[in-house]
Amino acid sequence: MPQFDVIGVGIASWDMIGVAATPPVLGQKQPLAGRTEMGGGPVATALATLARLGAKVALVSAVGNDHYGDAIRAELAHFGINTAFIATRPGSSHVSFVLAEPGSDRRTVWWYNEPAVFADLVFPPELASQTRALLIDSHLPAALSAAQQVRAAGGRIMIDAERVKPAVMELLPLCDDIVVSANFARAVTGLSDLDAATQALHDRYRRLIVVTAGEAGSWACDGGDVIYTPAFPTQPVDTTGCGDVFHGALLFALLRDDPLPGALRFASAAAALKTRGLGGRSALPTLADIEALLAS
Amino acid sequence: MPQFDVIGVGIASWDMIGVAATPPVLGQKQPLAGRTEMGGGPVATALATLARLGAKVALVSAVGNDHYGDAIRAELAHFGINTAFIATRPGSSHVSFVLAEPGSDRRTVWWYNEPAVFADLVFPPELASQTRALLIDSHLPAALSAAQQVRAAGGRIMIDAERVKPAVMELLPLCDDIVVSANFARAVTGLSDLDAATQALHDRYRRLIVVTAGEAGSWACDGGDVIYTPAFPTQPVDTTGCGDVFHGALLFALLRDDPLPGALRFASAAAALKTRGLGGRSALPTLADIEALLAS
Repeated sequence: MPQFDVIGVGIASWDMIGVAATPPVLGQKQPLAGRTEMGGGPVATALATLARLGAKVALVSAVGNDHYGDAIRAELAHFGINTAFIATRPGSSHVSFVLAEPGSDRRTVWWYNEPAVFADLVFPPELASQTRALLIDSHLPAALSAAQQVRAAGGRIMIDAERVKPAVMELLPLCDDIVVSANFARAVTGLSDLDAATQALHDRYRRLIVVTAGEAGSWACDGGDVIYTPAFPTQPVDTTGCGDVFHGALLFALLRDDPLPGALRFASAAAALKTRGLGGRSALPTLADIEALLAS
Repeated sequence: MPQFDVIGVGIASWDMIGVAATPPVLGQKQPLAGRTEMGGGPVATALATLARLGAKVALVSAVGNDHYGDAIRAELAHFGINTAFIATRPGSSHVSFVLAEPGSDRRTVWWYNEPAVFADLVFPPELASQTRALLIDSHLPAALSAAQQVRAAGGRIMIDAERVKPAVMELLPLCDDIVVSANFARAVTGLSDLDAATQALHDRYRRLIVVTAGEAGSWACDGGDVIYTPAFPTQPVDTTGCGDVFHGALLFALLRDDPLPGALRFASAAAALKTRGLGGRSALPTLADIEALLAS
């Protein structure tokens, strides 16, 4: 019996989030209407979502030896994520500045990454048989050996692929669940229609393909017809982390063997609920929150 | 004999400074080539400059009860600024996100201010006779009573006026040294030519007027002809705080009775030296640094 439901390999960030008080213009001094800060990182926020829903999760990552590293680690632990596999290295933690614009889903993100902090990060081999699933993106080189080892041990692998780059392309054939951005789907297939692009990606990889497009909804294919799932209507406070919450909730639903259409609606509801709060993790939904929205 | 050379009344900020790795575009996720963080705030950085040059200085201000407040206070003390008159109030400290663009003097600043932290801040009456000079901007209401009390006690008052607003206009008649931005000079006088605008401001206030225009130099008038002082040529790493360093160095030179043309060149040299470093205070010049540049 594996110790974990999901192990993630990805960047752990500290996100500083400001809400523009006036429409942002580069080159000016402008006030913020509000600010907050919290942990971030795509895989890490997906794991926080899974933990909130009751899954047992761990993150393989690294932080710098600064107070942001301490804050990142403490907040992950607060969400119930096992932090025993997070290294502390000399240097700056990964930090992001996020500018949100109220009433809009436009966000601007500037991120700082110190490669030395993440260099030589190794997926602990003993973990490969200790998890039902692995969640990765393409930011850390350790994702490749993690995927190889977990695949060999029989675990399920989900990837979050946002941009086309070599590190993503070599990971895709190892994955069971391939969740990509609309930009990614269009760039790889050359098709602008997302229904057709989803079908084409499935034809190529013969795995579950999910293409997410924010408030435009998602397209999925696992061999049958392409399933379109609309986004739930929201009045977003901030869309930071919506995709990450979608990934975490989708993997949660797939691991409990929900049929695909229901799993997609579950993930869509989770992402919609997230938009109630500023930052990736201030409004992570519980199982009851999601079920209430799905029943409404 | 006054205890202080200069007391400042102004915001104490914590500045997070990122250097864009690619030309910034709103609505995107973009990497930073570097980052740093340090104390900021216009008057506070001018005081740090004065302290670096050997002046005895104190700041009247407030910070929030968060770790940024602790960091702001510790850094001011590190620069030799007396922090006994900085209150700690419940709430968020003033923080700024600064985006610098290498090789350009364009910067974008987003700042967050929690009014409750600065509300009811009072200038300690016992300080009015304890300083040779007062340095203010228009961000804090306490600047008005501070100016009235220091003026009554015979002290010299310098204001940094960046934008036209009621709180600035009521302060100007109380000041000896009126240092304004080019935008301010043009808005108040309706004149686009800065030589003419400087003369017009002097005609109105009959005090020392200095109009600063970054790399375009400065214009000054104290009754005689307008003095134009070019900026020293620089290859700026970051221009954050250049104006504040100019104000601090100018007040330092005026307090030691330098003739006006020399005081302006001294301030211009200090501001040019500041551009060597990221953020307002990473490259504050010493007296020897400034003298070396002036002699070169």
